Amino acid sequence: MSQSAVSRCFKPGASISAKTRAKVEKAARQLGYQPNAIARGLITRRSNIVAVIISEPTNLNYPEVLSQLNRRLGERQVHILLFTLSRERDVNLALDQVWQYQVDGIIAAAQFTAEQIAACEDRGIPLVFYNRVYTQQGVSAVCCDHADGERQLIEGLLSNKRKNFVVMSGPADSAVSTARTKGAVTRLKQEKVNLMQVAGDYSYESAVECVHEVMSTKKFSPDAFVCANDTMAIGCIDTLRHDYGVAVPKDIAVVGFDGVGAAAWLSYDLTTVVQPVQRMVEAAVNMLLERVEDDSIPAETRLFAGQLRLGSSAQLEA
Amino acid sequence: MSQSAVSRCFKPGASISAKTRAKVEKAARQLGYQPNAIARGLITRRSNIVAVIISEPTNLNYPEVLSQLNRRLGERQVHILLFTLSRERDVNLALDQVWQYQVDGIIAAAQFTAEQIAACEDRGIPLVFYNRVYTQQGVSAVCCDHADGERQLIEGLLSNKRKNFVVMSGPADSAVSTARTKGAVTRLKQEKVNLMQVAGDYSYESAVECVHEVMSTKKFSPDAFVCANDTMAIGCIDTLRHDYGVAVPKDIAVVGFDGVGAAAWLSYDLTTVVQPVQRMVEAAVNMLLERVEDDSIPAETRLFAGQLRLGSSAQLEA
Repeated sequence: MSQSAVSRCFKPGASISAKTRAKVEKAARQLGYQPNAIARGLITRRSNIVAVIISEPTNLNYPEVLSQLNRRLGERQVHILLFTLSRERDVNLALDQVWQYQVDGIIAAAQFTAEQIAACEDRGIPLVFYNRVYTQQGVSAVCCDHADGERQLIEGLLSNKRKNFVVMSGPADSAVSTARTKGAVTRLKQEKVNLMQVAGDYSYESAVECVHEVMSTKKFSPDAFVCANDTMAIGCIDTLRHDYGVAVPKDIAVVGFDGVGAAAWLSYDLTTVVQPVQRMVEAAVNMLLERVEDDSIPAETRLFAGQLRLGSSAQLEA
Repeated sequence: MSQSAVSRCFKPGASISAKTRAKVEKAARQLGYQPNAIARGLITRRSNIVAVIISEPTNLNYPEVLSQLNRRLGERQVHILLFTLSRERDVNLALDQVWQYQVDGIIAAAQFTAEQIAACEDRGIPLVFYNRVYTQQGVSAVCCDHADGERQLIEGLLSNKRKNFVVMSGPADSAVSTARTKGAVTRLKQEKVNLMQVAGDYSYESAVECVHEVMSTKKFSPDAFVCANDTMAIGCIDTLRHDYGVAVPKDIAVVGFDGVGAAAWLSYDLTTVVQPVQRMVEAAVNMLLERVEDDSIPAETRLFAGQLRLGSSAQLEA
C-alpha cells in the first residue's frame, strides 16, 4: 500500500476507498498507531490548539462562556489551551507561555496593551477579543453592547421616577466594568438626578461593603442601585433587605448585568441585561477560525445587543 | 559561543554565567527567537501540557477548581489542555483527542471505564482522578470524603430530632452524587426514620421540581432535605419559602454539599460540607507531576475530610 493512501486515511475529508480505509485501520489497530497531532502540527503549521486567555475566571458568567467555547471549538476538532488570570494585568505572563506553543489563534477575554496586540500580529497569530472592543485599527472583537444595555436599564429606572442613583462598578482593571459604568454614568448625567459612584470588585462581598458605605452616607437616600454585574446586584439586594430592612424594589430598585443563572433564583428575580453568550461565542469561534485559514481577512468587530430581563428587583416597563 | 551555552540559557535551572546569559538573551531578542515548546516536546517527550477532563462544567464548584488547577500547574510551567464534557459518558470523545496530543498526564473529574483507564496505562500517560475513587488497583485519585461528610450532616439532623428525610440526588451518571447519596442513605437506614428519595440533576431548576414532587406526596411531611450539592439546596430553600410558605429551618431543615460562594449568601446561609478545594487541587497536581517524572511511583489515593459549615438553613450543634 502506498504512503499516500495511509496518509489520506487519517486526513479528514480526503478521498479514499472504503476497502483501503478498512485495511489501513485494521493495520493501525494492530500496531497501536495513533496520528500525532503535535508532529503533524510541525509540518502543517497547524496545531488545532487555540489559546483561551480569561481573566476573572470565578465570575459567575465564565463557566458558561468556557463551556460554550469548548463545545464550539470541539465541533471543529480544535482544542483549548487554557490560561486563567487572577488579574487582568497578568496577560504578559500568559503570552510568554503562549509563544512557546504553536497555537493557531487566541481568544482573549482580558485586556491587552497595544504592544501585546502588536506582538500577536508580528507572530502571525490571529486574535479575537471576547467582550471588549478596541478603537485601535486591525483588532477583531465580539462584544456585548454594554453601554446600550445600561442605557435601557437607566431609561426604565428614569420612567419609574427614580432620582437618587448609585452606580456600582467592578474592578478598576476590567474593561467590561469600565464600559458598563461609563454607559450608565453618561446617560445619568443628561438628567437632573443625584448620582453616587462606588467601586466593588464584581464579588458579592464587595457589594455588601459598598452598600454599607452608601447607607452610612449622610444626606443621601438612594432609590436605585445600578450594579456592574449580577453577583454584585445579588449582594446588594441581600444587604439592603437583611441589614437595612429595605423593600426591593418598592424603596430601592436594583439592577444587574449578565443574566447568570442565579439572576432567576426566586430570592432575587433580577432585572438585568442578558448577554447572548451562545451567539457571542459562536461568532468569536467562527471569526477566529476563518482568520486561521486565511490571514488576509480584514479585522471585524461584532457588537451584540443584550436582552432586557424584566425581573421583580426593579419594576420596569417593557 | 557554543550551542550548549545557548541551550542552557533557555533551560530552567541550568548553570550559566550572568554575562553569557545577557549576551544570549540580547541576541535572541534581536533575532526574535522564542523557544518552541512543541518541537522541544518531540525530543524530550515532555510537552508540559496536562489534559484536564471535566464533566459538569457549569456546576458552581468547577470554576474554582479550574482556576486553582491553572494556578498550581502554571507555577510549574505546565499548561492545561481543557476538555469539558456536557455528560460524563462523553469521555471517549475527549480521549480520542487526548491521544493525538503528547500530553504529559491527565487530571480527570469525570468517570472512566476500566478500558479507558487501561488505555491510559498502555500509552504510559499518568492519570489522577479528581473527586472520585476507584476500587480498581493502580489508579491514583484525590477525593473529598463524601460519605463521611454526609454522615456528619445526618448525625446533626438526627440529634435535632428530624424524622422525615428527603434525600435529593444529582445526575445518575455522576460518581460524586452517587457517593454522597449512598453515604446519606446508608446512615439513615440505621435509624427508625422515614425516607423519601428524589433525583435532580444538580441544577436549581431540578430542585424546584423535586420539591413540588415531595410536597404533593400524600401522607409524607418532610422535616429535612439532604441535597447532593449546594445549588439544589438553594433551589430547595427558595421553593419551600416562596411556594409553600415553609420556615427554614424551623419547619424543614435543608443541607447541601460543596461550600460554593452562594452558600454564604445572606438569603441562604447554608449548612453544608465545604470541600477543601485548594488542598485537593494541590495534591492532585503534585501526585500527577511526580508520576510524570517517575513512572515507577505506585498508585495512591488521598481522601480529604470535608469541613462542616454550620449555617442557619439547619441548626446543627458543632
